[in-house]
Amino acid sequence: MNSLIGILGGMGPGATVDAMQKLIKNTPAYKDQDHIPLIAISIPDIPDRTQCILQNSASPLKKMIKYMKILENAGAECIIIPCNTAHYWFNELKQHTQVEMISIIETTCQLIKEKNIRRIGLLATTATIKAEIYQGSLRENQVQCCIPERTEQEQVMNSIYAYKAGDFDQAYHLLLPVKARLQQMGVEKIILGCTELPLILENEIKAAPSDYIDATEELIKKTVSWYYQHAGRNNVAA
Amino acid sequence: MNSLIGILGGMGPGATVDAMQKLIKNTPAYKDQDHIPLIAISIPDIPDRTQCILQNSASPLKKMIKYMKILENAGAECIIIPCNTAHYWFNELKQHTQVEMISIIETTCQLIKEKNIRRIGLLATTATIKAEIYQGSLRENQVQCCIPERTEQEQVMNSIYAYKAGDFDQAYHLLLPVKARLQQMGVEKIILGCTELPLILENEIKAAPSDYIDATEELIKKTVSWYYQHAGRNNVAA
Repeated sequence: MNSLIGILGGMGPGATVDAMQKLIKNTPAYKDQDHIPLIAISIPDIPDRTQCILQNSASPLKKMIKYMKILENAGAECIIIPCNTAHYWFNELKQHTQVEMISIIETTCQLIKEKNIRRIGLLATTATIKAEIYQGSLRENQVQCCIPERTEQEQVMNSIYAYKAGDFDQAYHLLLPVKARLQQMGVEKIILGCTELPLILENEIKAAPSDYIDATEELIKKTVSWYYQHAGRNNVAA
Repeated sequence: MNSLIGILGGMGPGATVDAMQKLIKNTPAYKDQDHIPLIAISIPDIPDRTQCILQNSASPLKKMIKYMKILENAGAECIIIPCNTAHYWFNELKQHTQVEMISIIETTCQLIKEKNIRRIGLLATTATIKAEIYQGSLRENQVQCCIPERTEQEQVMNSIYAYKAGDFDQAYHLLLPVKARLQQMGVEKIILGCTELPLILENEIKAAPSDYIDATEELIKKTVSWYYQHAGRNNVAA
């Protein structure tokens, strides 16, 4: 149970499974026992993050703290949240736990800085965009951030809700033209800044992986690095 | 946190993710909040189940009990194990918990009985076959069970280990002829009685779903039924 990873999931359940799948894919393993130990909680009654930020409806914070505590009590030593919009409350969540937390936003922005990208597109929930969850950090690094226009952004949001409702085709067809428009604006890459987006654009990403920065994938790569650094330290100490 | 489902996973990690994916697929949901609450533990340092049964090596029981207790302490009210071979210890595990447990073996055999199948093929680990984890119950219901011959069974086991090692191509090519031979023996359907098998045969199942009984899928369908019966009862009581 060395360096147990905790996944605060359910936002949405499909994105939680995608994060776990990406953890497996990014782990060099030749048998079950080589894999990274994890515990994932996916109790999806957490209030809608976008509706809270935009319409001031019920806050998800209380339940996120409650479920994070379950992970902590189960022995999680590093907690990640495969939901970009939920990172609006990241600092508040951090104040309620003793264990390490890795931010999907910080990790993704760090990569953009390292890659020296100057002009990036952002696909995300309307709340992530309006609350400038990504833009703040991008601005600090002098990265120009292109976002969809208002009606296009509504389409992105409808696409995300369609995916959550199980309508993959509608989700895909709503998102595709908005993605194309961002590319026409001459961005170097597009941030997939909502954990449903890599699922909706799965085939596009396979066809042209270098066009995208999949925030979930970056979070997972950072988590794998954390694990090997930390598990290594524990082994030396043991 | 009504009727929280606990998944005792990590045997292997890919099968755990597959079970979670199937839980999502089998849940009638139109938004995140409609999904079934679950907690999944995937700490893959549990000793190899097949090696223990066949070679009397380290037993996985102690760790399975330990990780099951974590699920129970986290509030799980029904625990499932997406690993057929681990069900060798199912009754012992049941004695160590107060919460409901659903058996993948019982659920699958019940379906075979209901479908009035008389002659079935079994693909599973060598341990599941040698320990007759399925055959006992099938025999009680007068179901004739066809298993691969010795060298073919070795191929099945090598296929499962290849999948666990990340070599999907080898896993597929090892398994395919054994599956074909079972079909030539005139079986009505084939039990995919190891949770890696539906992943290895994904495309075959898509092409001819009625040829197979996917034990993971049956376990999940039963879990979804349990959830709606139980969540319903809780709601009435509340």
